[in-house]
Amino acid sequence: MSFLDTADAHSIAEQVRTARLSPGIVAEHFLAQTSARESAIQAFVALDPQVVRKQAQGLSSPGINGLLAGVPVGVKDIIDTRDHPTGFYSPIYDNNWPSRDAHVVALLRQAGAVIMGKTHTTEFAYMHTGPTRNPLDLNRTPGSSSAGSAAGMAAGFFPVALGTQTAGSLLKPAAYCGLYAFKPSYGLVSLEGIKPLAPSFDTLGWYGRSVRDLGLVAQVLIPGLPHVTRPSGPRTFGFCRTASWDQVDPLVADALLAAVDRLKAAGHSVTMVELPDEFAQVFDDHLLINDCEGARSLSKEWQSSPELLSPSVVAMIERAKGTTWEQESAAKARLAVQAHVLKAIFAPFDTMLSVTCGMVAPLGLETTGPSDFCKFWMAFGLPQINIPLPRQPGEMPVGLQVIGGFREDSALLDAAGQVDLALRG
Amino acid sequence: MSFLDTADAHSIAEQVRTARLSPGIVAEHFLAQTSARESAIQAFVALDPQVVRKQAQGLSSPGINGLLAGVPVGVKDIIDTRDHPTGFYSPIYDNNWPSRDAHVVALLRQAGAVIMGKTHTTEFAYMHTGPTRNPLDLNRTPGSSSAGSAAGMAAGFFPVALGTQTAGSLLKPAAYCGLYAFKPSYGLVSLEGIKPLAPSFDTLGWYGRSVRDLGLVAQVLIPGLPHVTRPSGPRTFGFCRTASWDQVDPLVADALLAAVDRLKAAGHSVTMVELPDEFAQVFDDHLLINDCEGARSLSKEWQSSPELLSPSVVAMIERAKGTTWEQESAAKARLAVQAHVLKAIFAPFDTMLSVTCGMVAPLGLETTGPSDFCKFWMAFGLPQINIPLPRQPGEMPVGLQVIGGFREDSALLDAAGQVDLALRG
Repeated sequence: MSFLDTADAHSIAEQVRTARLSPGIVAEHFLAQTSARESAIQAFVALDPQVVRKQAQGLSSPGINGLLAGVPVGVKDIIDTRDHPTGFYSPIYDNNWPSRDAHVVALLRQAGAVIMGKTHTTEFAYMHTGPTRNPLDLNRTPGSSSAGSAAGMAAGFFPVALGTQTAGSLLKPAAYCGLYAFKPSYGLVSLEGIKPLAPSFDTLGWYGRSVRDLGLVAQVLIPGLPHVTRPSGPRTFGFCRTASWDQVDPLVADALLAAVDRLKAAGHSVTMVELPDEFAQVFDDHLLINDCEGARSLSKEWQSSPELLSPSVVAMIERAKGTTWEQESAAKARLAVQAHVLKAIFAPFDTMLSVTCGMVAPLGLETTGPSDFCKFWMAFGLPQINIPLPRQPGEMPVGLQVIGGFREDSALLDAAGQVDLALRG
Repeated sequence: MSFLDTADAHSIAEQVRTARLSPGIVAEHFLAQTSARESAIQAFVALDPQVVRKQAQGLSSPGINGLLAGVPVGVKDIIDTRDHPTGFYSPIYDNNWPSRDAHVVALLRQAGAVIMGKTHTTEFAYMHTGPTRNPLDLNRTPGSSSAGSAAGMAAGFFPVALGTQTAGSLLKPAAYCGLYAFKPSYGLVSLEGIKPLAPSFDTLGWYGRSVRDLGLVAQVLIPGLPHVTRPSGPRTFGFCRTASWDQVDPLVADALLAAVDRLKAAGHSVTMVELPDEFAQVFDDHLLINDCEGARSLSKEWQSSPELLSPSVVAMIERAKGTTWEQESAAKARLAVQAHVLKAIFAPFDTMLSVTCGMVAPLGLETTGPSDFCKFWMAFGLPQINIPLPRQPGEMPVGLQVIGGFREDSALLDAAGQVDLALRG
């Protein structure tokens, strides 16, 4: 067992900044991990060890002194990179080499990160899945759409990875693979150089090995985000089941309720929160808007190469064609009103808790299960974190979701640290 | 005087589709216009006649039968194009050649358009101006930031052009150069491959030679936008002065009020609308959010090459550093609440009218005047159209602004047609 098998990015960068570890040694460790297991996992769609080594060897000031000095990062393949092709898992974009990095990739490099390669996504971050397997059980999906980033994290290929989320694309794989994940508030992270799907929801997020790593990457990718550290002590949590609670597997529900008991035992207050009935409509409204915006975002591909689109994308576009402009406007207007109602419901609580997924990672690679518990909060642009519940060897992971108020990302990161401490302390 | 000097895109494409005009002839006409006047106007940052000819000659099905068959289009240089460099008017991006077209450029090509070249923008579509002059008076600014697209339209270099708007970047140049312009509702047009400035506001829009051309391009760039044609007849307009009305030059105010009289004479109803006092805050809130989001959008350039940024961008970033997270959150929350109030104020009217700019194009090229009357509606994502008031030879143009409800772009286009008819009919 080596330090780098479990060290978080915070620790790795500190070792690199103080010259106790070289970026080259760090890179070789993670390359060795990929050599051992990548053929079984298939996290990468593009991985070139020479490109990784060149970055590590070329690291100079200010990167070598940066917050992510020498930290390898996996990048979902709907995010442009200048030294790797960017294919969106679509044959339409075979051999597409962007002229410049996406904004977030440039910020990572400026902070000293080493881009490990491009990780498998579903086609255009929608539903058509790739070959990636869940490292915790090769017969199960790692979740989608940020499949390669999540599987690569769980396999130890990199300690940080970028994903994106429109419904549950970042948090669902985190729940299935047992990862810490952070999806910031809508609009905080630049999407320049990232393929849009449904721009009302699309948000970049990331995986890390600890809650503090989620905050560390936030410092790099959200310039100006304030740092909030409240003293440890009792917090006031709400637990919100949403109208989809009947989807939750009893074993998952038991694990979550046990986690709630541990939070209470640690001195926190947890109150069950019921939502007004009209919030049951949120799931359908998210789907409808996702369809209509997805159809517009992929209209050029639909017009130029419909035969190269998967059945799931074609079905999305067909559903959009069957939706009127007024239906889409009404769905957006409902969400705008409900956002104010939800804000009032949040007010008495420091942070909201929920389940991330109602089931553990399902068997098979072609479907990845519902995303209702993620997309409910996505519909309002709220920041979300997945905390993997502690588990016994051999058990598949279950995720606890922690949700913050809009733009209260710092308070959410702080609260998630308290939750994690209570569960593991 | 040739047909192509004044023909709108609708007429040109019809001639091309029916083989009465070849795309090559059309391209040569507009290239000849640029030969005659481009050295005085400087609308283009990149113009290659061979690239234009190659597109025109290569036009085949389906483009040759498309809605924009053979129509030359100017493209603002913050929009990626695969056959021209894209420089954002920043030395940081000298010789940047994107690997693929922005989504909107791809849609234009699919509809048969010919990309004429890249038009001058201010640096990153913010405030630092380029060399472009107003074709109606070379001593005056064409407005910013879509300077080259607007000036090229007024000079007859192309019959359609793309611009973008975050505050007044599309409509202000339209007012100064006497153009029809359409800024759709926020979120309807894909921004893939367009450099972000303030993502809460950034919207692509376009210039055309007629109101019907504004609608024609909308059909191409907003797939699924319904077509609304109400029978001609009396409309119920509101006229909203906003809290910035004291900025309006008396001659501009007189011209607008004369236009209102013509609308009334044509049988329409025009009611003066007063806004509650708290709406005076909108201008400052827009500025504050623009600063904070602009600073995040340009954070990679600020970190890598601060010495290559203009004083205006640096000042924006410095203002953002002096703004707290809570101030930005509060500004966004105010706008979200006010959007609902404004919706109720709009309800009794078919469409709202206002001034586009409080002055005609000012003398000089370095500053371009305030954008308050544009950015007020931008803050709420509402669709906006500029209609140039009829004018005498030698007079500088004045713009009437027509504003629609959110996502009611089709109704706005229809109403703008009625306004234009009343003013010119």
